[in-house]
Amino acid sequence: MRADCQVCRSEGFAAHSRVQVRLGNRSIIATLNIVYGSLLSTGEAGFSETAWTMLAPQPGERASFAHPVAVDSMSHVRAKVYGQRLVESQFDAIVSDIVAGRYTDVELAAFITGCADGHLSQEEITFLTRAMINTGERLTWPYQHVMDKHCVGGLAGNRTTMVVVPIAAALGLIMPKTSSRAITSPSGTADTMEVLAPVDLTLQQMRAVIEREGACIAWGGAVHLSPADDILVRVERALDLDSEGQMVASVLAKKAAAGSTHVVLDIPVGPTAKVRSGAAAHRLQKLLEHTAHAMGLKARTLISDGRQPVGRGIGPALEAADVLAVLRNEAGAPKDLRSHSLDIAAALVELAGLGQGDEARALATAMLTEGHAWAKMQAICEAQGGMRQIPRAAQIHEIVATHAGHVNAIDNRLLSRVAKLAGAPAVPAAGLELLVRIDDPVVRGQPLFRIHADNRGDLDYVLEFVQRHPGAVEIERH
Amino acid sequence: MRADCQVCRSEGFAAHSRVQVRLGNRSIIATLNIVYGSLLSTGEAGFSETAWTMLAPQPGERASFAHPVAVDSMSHVRAKVYGQRLVESQFDAIVSDIVAGRYTDVELAAFITGCADGHLSQEEITFLTRAMINTGERLTWPYQHVMDKHCVGGLAGNRTTMVVVPIAAALGLIMPKTSSRAITSPSGTADTMEVLAPVDLTLQQMRAVIEREGACIAWGGAVHLSPADDILVRVERALDLDSEGQMVASVLAKKAAAGSTHVVLDIPVGPTAKVRSGAAAHRLQKLLEHTAHAMGLKARTLISDGRQPVGRGIGPALEAADVLAVLRNEAGAPKDLRSHSLDIAAALVELAGLGQGDEARALATAMLTEGHAWAKMQAICEAQGGMRQIPRAAQIHEIVATHAGHVNAIDNRLLSRVAKLAGAPAVPAAGLELLVRIDDPVVRGQPLFRIHADNRGDLDYVLEFVQRHPGAVEIERH
Repeated sequence: MRADCQVCRSEGFAAHSRVQVRLGNRSIIATLNIVYGSLLSTGEAGFSETAWTMLAPQPGERASFAHPVAVDSMSHVRAKVYGQRLVESQFDAIVSDIVAGRYTDVELAAFITGCADGHLSQEEITFLTRAMINTGERLTWPYQHVMDKHCVGGLAGNRTTMVVVPIAAALGLIMPKTSSRAITSPSGTADTMEVLAPVDLTLQQMRAVIEREGACIAWGGAVHLSPADDILVRVERALDLDSEGQMVASVLAKKAAAGSTHVVLDIPVGPTAKVRSGAAAHRLQKLLEHTAHAMGLKARTLISDGRQPVGRGIGPALEAADVLAVLRNEAGAPKDLRSHSLDIAAALVELAGLGQGDEARALATAMLTEGHAWAKMQAICEAQGGMRQIPRAAQIHEIVATHAGHVNAIDNRLLSRVAKLAGAPAVPAAGLELLVRIDDPVVRGQPLFRIHADNRGDLDYVLEFVQRHPGAVEIERH
Repeated sequence: MRADCQVCRSEGFAAHSRVQVRLGNRSIIATLNIVYGSLLSTGEAGFSETAWTMLAPQPGERASFAHPVAVDSMSHVRAKVYGQRLVESQFDAIVSDIVAGRYTDVELAAFITGCADGHLSQEEITFLTRAMINTGERLTWPYQHVMDKHCVGGLAGNRTTMVVVPIAAALGLIMPKTSSRAITSPSGTADTMEVLAPVDLTLQQMRAVIEREGACIAWGGAVHLSPADDILVRVERALDLDSEGQMVASVLAKKAAAGSTHVVLDIPVGPTAKVRSGAAAHRLQKLLEHTAHAMGLKARTLISDGRQPVGRGIGPALEAADVLAVLRNEAGAPKDLRSHSLDIAAALVELAGLGQGDEARALATAMLTEGHAWAKMQAICEAQGGMRQIPRAAQIHEIVATHAGHVNAIDNRLLSRVAKLAGAPAVPAAGLELLVRIDDPVVRGQPLFRIHADNRGDLDYVLEFVQRHPGAVEIERH
């Protein structure tokens, strides 16, 4: 709007004011930019492309501009920050207001921070989960068993889903997998799968893929299963902040909304993983199992080794390459990705009642070694819109050991940050390849990891960061 | 920038990206807007007025655009949110980065929320206070006793400073008072004082006023005493969230940076004041006294009655009118404002060693009743740039009792919200006049409070709010 326009003056709008714009029965809450000069005439306002799409102004229509009605539910957020326990109706009010777009980013940040760490009780997590389910779409499937899996992230390169789903589908299980894009990591499963096939499927497209192949690996956001989570994720990403309670709610709300009935939950534990101690993993396990039960889901949790990244690649394209190596039974395929995927697949087999213990694991392994999983993965990619070639980065740079010794520790978080600064996940080919594992002996000058970037500017930027933060791979001198 | 510009493409900038812009040796971190069409030519970028002023581009100069360097100190903020205790160097790093403008609003919100409630230890508050002092300017005065006072806000209309300062100065005490503008309230002392005289004084102007009159009432932000606080306040205001630890640090950092040696701290307590219980007041008292001592300040704390607003007016102009009525010893002057101001003035007299107990209070009272304080206030206003007429709102509307009874409770927070929605403090004449006190008998139709607004739009807006929130003045039926 113009700085001198009457609405700005009388309403006291200034640059970055939140303004409710109404046009017919459409309404948005927008952030105001103020312009000087002749860009707009008196009585005119300009919209962003997004606002234009949402308001769909017609010739001759008049818009009205007002202060957004005060968001009452922020008082509940303040109560939460002050350490009070909230009741179900308060979570319903908060989540409804978030989904309606009534929260500013600053208010979302306060809610996320107020719910971070252990600030939500078991009961509050159940309330938040239910509020998230109730504000989104909910899928139903004409199958008795609808299998699902989820890994409580924080472990770079952990792309088990893309190995587990084809194994399960090859065994005849129904697994309409919806995955998320990266929150704080260099790649989410949806980002990695997108390297191989379209993931932005409509619900109708998803149903067609399931009918044909029994399974899919799609982006969950496209089917609006948890609109609250989609809004929160953007600010969570900016804060790089995780919240146990919000994580449990977000994971299980998506599973319940997706119509899943049986779910395997994988919790990797390590000093630089999202879950850092056995005690934290057990607490999270209890929260997940309790909340899953309250939502009517049959759940099994696995606690796994999260001391270092799984596979070699970190970043969409490099992780996709690891997945294909495992599915194709290549000699150089990352062993840890293969074995970890088989653990999860075996748990799914048990949960579905197809076999127990060694028998379950043998069933899952057979699907992989006999090539059924690889054939199924190709079929799924074709059904989702066609299999794609994996892109390769233009700039590759090796970081080498400055002294001899053996690998003592690997900082997952630092490696994730490096991969993100290199451009992942926005640039699919960007990221890094980890060339050593914990306990490996190394000689001076031996490559430790390779950075992949799209252009020289991104590469220089990440190299400057690596120079300032040398501890990603810690080498103990002999 | 243009959506198709090479920098956006290669760097992955999108709408609302944070971008570091360099021009010569000047640098800012800006939020990106993306434009389509011919508004900008290829190779051009547009700046806001603020960015233009800060970067001062010269003809022929070239700007460079890059991702801002990752803010390392956010890892300390996350540690704080996760419940860890921080050390002094971590607070130094956080506050330096905040002052350098490296934090986004979302990151500031996480820091504020992570420090809210009782999340900071006594030691952490000391660290935060010292970090705030070290990142701003620090005043020194050629006087042994430099008096100061502060009220831990939350009580609408509590404008004791403007009565206390002229009393102290009339007694010959030195009191270079810097006050803040509203944070979450409808008016700060600086906003109210600004109705009577300029408050936006440079340090040089402040020194001249002190030399002439011994005291001033200036806006603290103009002298950059606590730039960290000035940045935090904007997001705190948006969140309407208070933090005990941050409040203590913010208050005492400003006092120490202002060169004060002796300070009276007033803590009003009431169910809808900022401090709601005696226990909370005593905890705050201990934190204030401990931190003041650590900073080398002589402090005295008063716990006062905060069950209802002090004075009648809420909002800059209406509060200024209350202050003048007290200083002029008018018959209708609000008794509570007068008596509360005298309590604080007496504490200052004691702290300065001019008298103790009844003698101290008698000294303060004499300054008021004999007209010395009023004469001093006029002299201070003249020295600050000239005394002003109090403005009056165009729209005044009375809210009346819907039934007879007596006043049972007054919701300070709700009244503050009403005054803010009416336009205070941005519109100085806006706010409300409270016409009843707790325990007053009322008849049906009797006016309870008067809303003052600048225009019909603001008035309608606030009346709609009052209709939805009827409990500001609670009347118990007989």
